Amino acid sequence: MENPTLELLLNRRTIRAFKPQTLTTEQLNTLMEVARQAATSTFLQQCSVIHVTDAQIRSQIRDITTQSYVGANGDLFIFVIDLYRNQQIRHQKGETDGRLHAMDVFLQAMEDTVLTAQNVTTAAESMGLGCVFLGSIQNDAQKMIELLNLPKMTFPLLGLQVGVPDQQPQIKPRLPLKFRTFENQYDYHYELADLADYDEQIHQYYDLRDTNRRVDTFTHQIAQKLTTSLAKRDQILTVLHQQGLCLE
Amino acid sequence: MENPTLELLLNRRTIRAFKPQTLTTEQLNTLMEVARQAATSTFLQQCSVIHVTDAQIRSQIRDITTQSYVGANGDLFIFVIDLYRNQQIRHQKGETDGRLHAMDVFLQAMEDTVLTAQNVTTAAESMGLGCVFLGSIQNDAQKMIELLNLPKMTFPLLGLQVGVPDQQPQIKPRLPLKFRTFENQYDYHYELADLADYDEQIHQYYDLRDTNRRVDTFTHQIAQKLTTSLAKRDQILTVLHQQGLCLE
Repeated sequence: MENPTLELLLNRRTIRAFKPQTLTTEQLNTLMEVARQAATSTFLQQCSVIHVTDAQIRSQIRDITTQSYVGANGDLFIFVIDLYRNQQIRHQKGETDGRLHAMDVFLQAMEDTVLTAQNVTTAAESMGLGCVFLGSIQNDAQKMIELLNLPKMTFPLLGLQVGVPDQQPQIKPRLPLKFRTFENQYDYHYELADLADYDEQIHQYYDLRDTNRRVDTFTHQIAQKLTTSLAKRDQILTVLHQQGLCLE
Repeated sequence: MENPTLELLLNRRTIRAFKPQTLTTEQLNTLMEVARQAATSTFLQQCSVIHVTDAQIRSQIRDITTQSYVGANGDLFIFVIDLYRNQQIRHQKGETDGRLHAMDVFLQAMEDTVLTAQNVTTAAESMGLGCVFLGSIQNDAQKMIELLNLPKMTFPLLGLQVGVPDQQPQIKPRLPLKFRTFENQYDYHYELADLADYDEQIHQYYDLRDTNRRVDTFTHQIAQKLTTSLAKRDQILTVLHQQGLCLE
């Protein structure tokens, strides 16, 4: 089973090195039209996209992410969970906030936002561009809110750096499907021994990867990565509450 | 700017009527391989997919969603936020839960899950199949957890019904880009008057749509929809906490 879209989705990889050029106006317009057409939960359209072109703001976002390629070559977008617009419409219609502060409405808005970010990424890749998602903007969510002048009832969820690829990384091997997919009911049984082959595969991947000499396994990463975090990552729930989100 | 992937993304629409047939094994395998290759935040791979084939479980999920097409023609998938697998790996490595109960790790896992759901949808659409996302499984998240035998540290986020389309709906007009996209900083100013043209466009769309005679506007929907909910939608934060998620 083959078609150009499947080819993209089955061979996708993150690009972190871009040529020193920005997107064309036509490329930008197409990406934003794709963003506009993404699926939206109960038609609430609760996502906004900010294109960051200002050199100072880009530089400050780069500092937050601590990733040198952020806001450098290519174009930087921030995908924003946006319940503010609907709050304003409700107020101007004489309605209260209703359920805008509830968790399930936040989940709906976050779904809209991630669906949009993925479609923009797929569209960019179909044009021969490369992309890297930037969850790293969560290193300081409050600072991101200030930089982008975001009102309460919004939250900057994901960044995306898009540009002309200047590298051709290998595909990173994923967990075997038997650990990721189930029929009818979840299967509780994971054994480290069953993950040994996959650990070896990941070890070889890192060993071969010429950009980085880290030699590691998947289970070792899981044991290490989720242990500690940058201090401000612990404040995300507080920031969400300050923004009026996830309160009930 | 044209290519088959952009064509799909720019013309996407939700399909809610399917022919009475299931996916082929080859289609199913391809969709699950696409799921496996989706981007994943800091390589934590925190999404699982459940293919629901059991007639009784499908029927019970249909009842939860109150949508007649759910679990009927075609195939039903549930996309699960999954921090359980990594918790098990950590425990077997002699580690504590670490930050698995924190909000930012939940956001990462939810991102993985929605990115995966979108890529499976795009892949299905590229094969000529149609899809409808089912946020409606949130009508009773606790019941979904029981039906799918989901352990703590998981959460059933989104359903997806996929099948051979038996309808050709129009594209639903989206908000103009000036309300959805900004350069550098968020623009706070929304005026109902500025939305009048869009309200008229939505009104005409509903007027023409042959499957439904509802005649409505966007701002009217926003004023109405977010006001009340099914009782169990108010319990989602409680269910997330019971599952061990979003606690700090």
